[in-house]
Amino acid sequence: MKRYFTTLLIFTVAGFSGQALADADSELTAKTLCAGCHGPNGISTNPLWPNLAGQHSAYTAVQLRAYRDGTRTDPNMNALVSNLSDDEIDALAEYYAKLPGGG
Amino acid sequence: MKRYFTTLLIFTVAGFSGQALADADSELTAKTLCAGCHGPNGISTNPLWPNLAGQHSAYTAVQLRAYRDGTRTDPNMNALVSNLSDDEIDALAEYYAKLPGGG
Repeated sequence: MKRYFTTLLIFTVAGFSGQALADADSELTAKTLCAGCHGPNGISTNPLWPNLAGQHSAYTAVQLRAYRDGTRTDPNMNALVSNLSDDEIDALAEYYAKLPGGG
Repeated sequence: MKRYFTTLLIFTVAGFSGQALADADSELTAKTLCAGCHGPNGISTNPLWPNLAGQHSAYTAVQLRAYRDGTRTDPNMNALVSNLSDDEIDALAEYYAKLPGGG
């Protein structure tokens, strides 16, 4: 029984740490890659660039893949996201979906 | 002097009414054309479709023109906005920008 709880604890801590690391990674990527145009909180200062804060993660992820794969074109975006993996795209989209939107 | 104020009043009332009518028009267009997918308040129920509420009007207007003119492609959107004028697009974009965003 003790072994069971120890194992459970290890998996729980590992799971939590994994999620915390993924969140930290996506925040770092967002700040490095996206914040220059889309703002530190996902509200862009230039109104020609979309707010990402509060946007559905599924929509943002589809658009990021479209930019990465060239089916949606924008000279800045195509280059910026060209090296993102599917997991990184999903994490970025989830990160922005949780921030409060504009309006 | 009285004539000046009368003229000013007429222009003020006419200007207000014009704005009120434009707002009513864009709300009607939004409800007729957009709400089915993007929600009655610009928050879409299907997460694959973007929230429009709280989005910068300039960004939304550029995207609507791109859909209308075929430089951004989506089978539903290209057809839906094909008959919108520039003024109608700007009014729709302004209408959604003022609604509170998601997140």
